[in-house]
Amino acid sequence: MTTKFPYKHLLGLRGMPRETIELILDTARAMKEVHSRKVKKVPTLRGKIVVNLFYEPSTRTRTSFELAAKRLSADTVGISTTTSSVVKGESLLDTAHTLRVMGADIIIMRHSSSGAPHLLAENLNISIINAGDGINEHPTQGLLDLFTIREHKGQIQGLTVTIAGDIRHSRVARSNMWGLLTLGAKVRMVGPPTLVPKYVRDLGVEVYTDFDKAIDGADVINLLRIQKERMTANFFPNLREYNRLYGMSSERLANAKPGVLIMHPGPINRGVEISSEVADSPSSVILEQVTNGIAVRMAVLYLLVTGQRERSTEEGASSFLWEAES
Amino acid sequence: MTTKFPYKHLLGLRGMPRETIELILDTARAMKEVHSRKVKKVPTLRGKIVVNLFYEPSTRTRTSFELAAKRLSADTVGISTTTSSVVKGESLLDTAHTLRVMGADIIIMRHSSSGAPHLLAENLNISIINAGDGINEHPTQGLLDLFTIREHKGQIQGLTVTIAGDIRHSRVARSNMWGLLTLGAKVRMVGPPTLVPKYVRDLGVEVYTDFDKAIDGADVINLLRIQKERMTANFFPNLREYNRLYGMSSERLANAKPGVLIMHPGPINRGVEISSEVADSPSSVILEQVTNGIAVRMAVLYLLVTGQRERSTEEGASSFLWEAES
Amino acid sequence: MTTKFPYKHLLGLRGMPRETIELILDTARAMKEVHSRKVKKVPTLRGKIVVNLFYEPSTRTRTSFELAAKRLSADTVGISTTTSSVVKGESLLDTAHTLRVMGADIIIMRHSSSGAPHLLAENLNISIINAGDGINEHPTQGLLDLFTIREHKGQIQGLTVTIAGDIRHSRVARSNMWGLLTLGAKVRMVGPPTLVPKYVRDLGVEVYTDFDKAIDGADVINLLRIQKERMTANFFPNLREYNRLYGMSSERLANAKPGVLIMHPGPINRGVEISSEVADSPSSVILEQVTNGIAVRMAVLYLLVTGQRERSTEEGASSFLWEAES
Repeated sequence: MTTKFPYKHLLGLRGMPRETIELILDTARAMKEVHSRKVKKVPTLRGKIVVNLFYEPSTRTRTSFELAAKRLSADTVGISTTTSSVVKGESLLDTAHTLRVMGADIIIMRHSSSGAPHLLAENLNISIINAGDGINEHPTQGLLDLFTIREHKGQIQGLTVTIAGDIRHSRVARSNMWGLLTLGAKVRMVGPPTLVPKYVRDLGVEVYTDFDKAIDGADVINLLRIQKERMTANFFPNLREYNRLYGMSSERLANAKPGVLIMHPGPINRGVEISSEVADSPSSVILEQVTNGIAVRMAVLYLLVTGQRERSTEEGASSFLWEAES
Repeated sequence: MTTKFPYKHLLGLRGMPRETIELILDTARAMKEVHSRKVKKVPTLRGKIVVNLFYEPSTRTRTSFELAAKRLSADTVGISTTTSSVVKGESLLDTAHTLRVMGADIIIMRHSSSGAPHLLAENLNISIINAGDGINEHPTQGLLDLFTIREHKGQIQGLTVTIAGDIRHSRVARSNMWGLLTLGAKVRMVGPPTLVPKYVRDLGVEVYTDFDKAIDGADVINLLRIQKERMTANFFPNLREYNRLYGMSSERLANAKPGVLIMHPGPINRGVEISSEVADSPSSVILEQVTNGIAVRMAVLYLLVTGQRERSTEEGASSFLWEAES
Repeated sequence: MTTKFPYKHLLGLRGMPRETIELILDTARAMKEVHSRKVKKVPTLRGKIVVNLFYEPSTRTRTSFELAAKRLSADTVGISTTTSSVVKGESLLDTAHTLRVMGADIIIMRHSSSGAPHLLAENLNISIINAGDGINEHPTQGLLDLFTIREHKGQIQGLTVTIAGDIRHSRVARSNMWGLLTLGAKVRMVGPPTLVPKYVRDLGVEVYTDFDKAIDGADVINLLRIQKERMTANFFPNLREYNRLYGMSSERLANAKPGVLIMHPGPINRGVEISSEVADSPSSVILEQVTNGIAVRMAVLYLLVTGQRERSTEEGASSFLWEAES
């Protein structure tokens, strides 16, 4: 493989070149193979320290990163808001610098503010992975979704992918959108009009309000999780109404394109954005997405660490940052 | 050793055959030997992932399982309700499936609902260990109690064991009862009449209300922890009264059978169900129980994983589940 | 190296002989070298169990100990009040004994009560490290401060060190004071009169109320963190006033002795006890202190474990405890 991974951080998929995305996906395929070994562990990151710095609650993503790091034999430390010195009022940057000088090689960060990981990346000379920042991006989720689609469909180019739900507040939708557009998919978005932002049309996304039309002929339907707390803000009337208008049901699945993939970043709300029958149907790849998440995160950790080594020995290697929207 | 361990899960001691219990206890004896080595670690479960999924707070049991897994070189991940995506309303089964497809080999689960681990066992194709489910069972506690008794008394058969306290709400009492009866002990139960259920008489248990009579001639006295929150439900008048009627005191110990073992699952309430003098006396094996807990849990983890290997290569191996009382 | 480390616990720097302090600092220098290796890990404590038992919230100290233990290949378990069985009302000693019989080799303990780790040390036959007890001591912080000063100044003997802030409630100030006096430094203390105790004069400390006089000619200025909760107790008027009187500013730094070291145990309150310019200036060694904390804690863990081995094979080795002030 001659393609290099010259980047220091993984902050987002916006602006990431096609060949870089494909390098990550190819590396993830190799990592997935470790999963099927008898001893599911490789010594690649032995002695490296990977810190999970989570300012928002998370089990799924945090555990996925932790297991990915452990499979690569890294040492992991987890810090979450409830136990962190955030309670003592230390600034985000001071906390990050403290972790850096303790020997952290990579900080994986989730934060409610869009751009928080970018702040760290601009100020620290260690690798930062964005595990979700506000409503901006969640790049490893985007990558694992691309990986899952590619595994089933062979390639992304030319596919039609419908993303449904609360687009406006979804960093998952955004990371998917950037990655899918770069890899040549046609992207459709659908949801309550209050929850689908206008600007995506300018990027080439087709916007729908009718769910049935939006999924007609789609190769992939990616259902976003409904955040029940949005309801109180009157973005949509109620869960039953949401389910009727935008819920993926067996009837809708029967009318969908044969071979359609049903995706969801999880955790799912059964009976709201997806019925139990659909979630557990052969069309659903929701659990595969979780498995692929480990492989994709192993690939990202591996590429960042080996990239660090190469960058430190080569003159003039790029240290381009994937930037947040300003 | 020709006896096999063909079971996939450890859900309870009810119905578990004598030879299976003895296989676990024999294996635990071998594991206890690791404890005394210079490097207290064996590579048996290297690359395996053991998840502690705790829906009730626990330090003692969770730490014991975590250390048992680490001694066997497994990777461990801990998930407790306060940090889990339970807050996001995901169903128990969806959480467990997510952990499974992340590569978990064994899920150790504590839950306030009796039968919760059985639900997982019936639906997942990985091993489930019950670390306490509602008022049903806590099988590794039962096994470590049996192990401790056998270590001191040579065998269980023919011994008289008194279990004292809040029997009604105790999964520890139930797991002990099933195991002791299977191994041929005579079981006595004693406690406030409101806290000793009637049905145990039908199983061959002798029920007492007088503590002094219940411990007269007993080889083992297992004192349950008083849950102070039961008091408010008027199951018994107050702690002082409980201590007078059912507390293990030096006077009572002096009248007990010579060589009697004083046991307690911990954490103990000094001055309530047990006096400090008795807890710290040579008759007390309370701390030995904790040490044996590591050995017994190492044995269970080992047998489940090696059993998995055998089952996957043998046709028709049993996958019998130890079921909860319906 | 012929000096031995015959002590079983690290409870405080008070009364610790000069050669013992220097042995720890010399060992830390060797440990710091591991930090710069490609694989930053040594197998020294493989199979050992190190427990972080924290009864007060902490990220910094807990993470530092955890990483130090992992760099030495120990297994670590963390127990914090929020998840511990403290909620079940178990006594401190019973919790510690439980951890001991689970196989813990070293318990690292933080507690709000002065003397709590001493209670454990007197009753358990495993090593206890004080990670901060009430207002008594925080010996590894004192040691890492000494290490940092020695690295920059060559030796401690003859230096003038000013400790500024809330001396009265600071275990960091106390551990620094004992260590600095033993190694022959001149110690000055300064802060609001309500926050500097009188007794330190009797130990040879020079007490100031004027910050500018206190830092005049000092080789090292160690700024304590202002606990904002003290303000409500009327120990000092407000943060702005505190900053004006005792805050380390660029102007004050310009007037300080050339080559002065600015230290802070962290986390820092920018704009209160230290300005951002000073914190980020070349005079500041605040982040170096954090890095050195890992090395010092690795040294302490290493010396306690290897000391255990020697003590168990030698007759009559000292088991002197570093005691808390009664």
